[in-house]
Amino acid sequence: MANNFKYYSPTEVIFGKDSERETGKQLKRLGASRVLLVFGGNSARNSGLLDKVRCSLKEEGISFSELEGIVPNPRLDKVYEGIRIGKAENVDFLLAIGGGSAIDTAKAIAYGLAEPEHDVWELFQHVRIAEKCLPVASILTIAAAGSETSKGCVITNEKTGEKRAYDDNLARPKISIMNPEYTKSLPDYQTESGCVDIMMHTMERYFTNGGNLEITDAIAEALLRTVMKNAVVLHENPGNLDARSEIMWAGSLAHNDLTGCGNDGGDFMTHKLEHEIGGMFDVTHGAGLAAVWPSWARYVYKDCLHRFVRFARNVMDITLEGTDEEVAEAGIYAMEQFYGNIGMPTNMRELGIRPSNDQILDIANRCMIASGNHTGSAKKLNLDDAVEIYKNAR
Amino acid sequence: MANNFKYYSPTEVIFGKDSERETGKQLKRLGASRVLLVFGGNSARNSGLLDKVRCSLKEEGISFSELEGIVPNPRLDKVYEGIRIGKAENVDFLLAIGGGSAIDTAKAIAYGLAEPEHDVWELFQHVRIAEKCLPVASILTIAAAGSETSKGCVITNEKTGEKRAYDDNLARPKISIMNPEYTKSLPDYQTESGCVDIMMHTMERYFTNGGNLEITDAIAEALLRTVMKNAVVLHENPGNLDARSEIMWAGSLAHNDLTGCGNDGGDFMTHKLEHEIGGMFDVTHGAGLAAVWPSWARYVYKDCLHRFVRFARNVMDITLEGTDEEVAEAGIYAMEQFYGNIGMPTNMRELGIRPSNDQILDIANRCMIASGNHTGSAKKLNLDDAVEIYKNAR
Repeated sequence: MANNFKYYSPTEVIFGKDSERETGKQLKRLGASRVLLVFGGNSARNSGLLDKVRCSLKEEGISFSELEGIVPNPRLDKVYEGIRIGKAENVDFLLAIGGGSAIDTAKAIAYGLAEPEHDVWELFQHVRIAEKCLPVASILTIAAAGSETSKGCVITNEKTGEKRAYDDNLARPKISIMNPEYTKSLPDYQTESGCVDIMMHTMERYFTNGGNLEITDAIAEALLRTVMKNAVVLHENPGNLDARSEIMWAGSLAHNDLTGCGNDGGDFMTHKLEHEIGGMFDVTHGAGLAAVWPSWARYVYKDCLHRFVRFARNVMDITLEGTDEEVAEAGIYAMEQFYGNIGMPTNMRELGIRPSNDQILDIANRCMIASGNHTGSAKKLNLDDAVEIYKNAR
Repeated sequence: MANNFKYYSPTEVIFGKDSERETGKQLKRLGASRVLLVFGGNSARNSGLLDKVRCSLKEEGISFSELEGIVPNPRLDKVYEGIRIGKAENVDFLLAIGGGSAIDTAKAIAYGLAEPEHDVWELFQHVRIAEKCLPVASILTIAAAGSETSKGCVITNEKTGEKRAYDDNLARPKISIMNPEYTKSLPDYQTESGCVDIMMHTMERYFTNGGNLEITDAIAEALLRTVMKNAVVLHENPGNLDARSEIMWAGSLAHNDLTGCGNDGGDFMTHKLEHEIGGMFDVTHGAGLAAVWPSWARYVYKDCLHRFVRFARNVMDITLEGTDEEVAEAGIYAMEQFYGNIGMPTNMRELGIRPSNDQILDIANRCMIASGNHTGSAKKLNLDDAVEIYKNAR
């Protein structure tokens, strides 16, 4: 049985070769006049993309400022820096160039500039909700986060070690320009981490005890199989542009809510467990997800058995005849093998970290606080569960 | 290899039980103050939906006028009537209640009211393009046309017998409210015609010689399999609400361009061939598609063999070992059997019409004129091809 749902994914997508050349024209059409570019640095510069974007904006008479130096697990201090620049330069439009970190930073700055009388971090502390947000656009160069079409935004407060999410349709990018060519320079580890993140955005919505639409399940399974196939292609041949196109578009579809229509909101505990690891250890997000998922899955699958069986059959191609438990376990094992095959960790040791018991209690506590009442659908987790899952992943 | 593409599907969807109760609130949020309701009549009245919508609008202080009597293959004279009412009442928002006919009529009226100095039929004659369009919303009660999230609009000029399409993002509904309960009263023939139409919206985008994304193919196949399964459920048990939910949401996804991302624009000749049958004989659109598709498929499949083989394997579950031609033919035959199983025609005789040779030449000519340069991707058709396909379907 499916639940009522709302679906809203208004972001315009311009996909393919040379699409970045449309940047100026498209932003002008959307009313931009003073843009803040938000990006990491080396990659956008070395690929020539930054220069192309600058030219494209100049050609349309759009003025711009720049905020450089965005890093993975994007930081609140850069958000504040962007807000300062944006105020000084009277910015009316944000353009992120990069992946989820650049886009999320741009979204957070857009919130901050639209309501300059408030501290933007309050949104991430969930003590108020946003009333306004400046328009955001992105030129995607890392397929993974899905932030280019999503309402999500995740920022790390480097002072407190908190990694926090704030979701609102106000921040959905107006337009996202995607040329898969620009993902080619990404190291394999980052590419494969991206693939895991894309898959997890789908799986978080898939493992639910609260019902779903068949068509949503079928689309989710189609997406997972396509991403797995192309993740293997890219592990062997990173330059395969067709595979990069598949992964890039899958990344958007996995996180624009399409794969959640009719479900109960999904589980999302793997993401929340990983967020705290990311906040404390600064690991690559997708790799962190791969490291914690098998432990999560083995801890919860008996409470969501029908979905794990379906997953094993329809996604992992498990043909084993056996009990539901055996089929579900075979599916989890097969996913673990897959992570290994594409060079991803399947526990924290392989991720390169070894949190102490105290650290685990600390991040488990933080995870519970950040989760509020939403502590899972496959199984509702409490503090002890979170501690157990972290320990089993160690 | 995939093509560059643009994807834009901004329509907000409110899906599920009691969703129609939000009508007034949502339209107010979207700025509506004087609404024109566009609907057929009996169905909206008998189900109580019309009264609920009126109440919901009144509660929010939104005034409204009504245009009743929209029929399948919606007619230009009702569009003109709506434009007259809209001008007199200063309408600023269109709300369609029904299926594709009501929505397409509302879209055409919205174009006409936004540019009152022009004849709206010019758009459908493709002698000018629209610059503006009033906002359109819909409450969907017939799953099929996909018009609730699409840019498409098809109107029949009853004077000339021409059925013509005009596509523009300007007319994409701002919001579509979908409660599958309201599709329950639909006769089985209409329900199954809807299922065929939904499938054809996907298949038109699938049968192409111009490349595609794997993920688009996988989603299209998932959608087709889900619709086929639930079409059979509804043929046996029309009251099954879960199946109605699946079909309703599939109808939107099949025609919001999701299943065409990365292709060459698709084929769409089955639709164009059917449009002329519909223009001349006023048959049910989906049934007309079922009646012409097998003939089209058998005429073109050798020119698009790899796609017909993929279709046979991944959608129709053909496991036959044989030549590509044999597998492709088996897939077409299986689809024909499926149409028969859900009470749909597989040729014009079963559709209840028997056009003369002269009539066939006439509609084939009209089809060529309406198609312009876009006469297919699986195989580019000329006048002789169209005549042949019509004759083989007779």
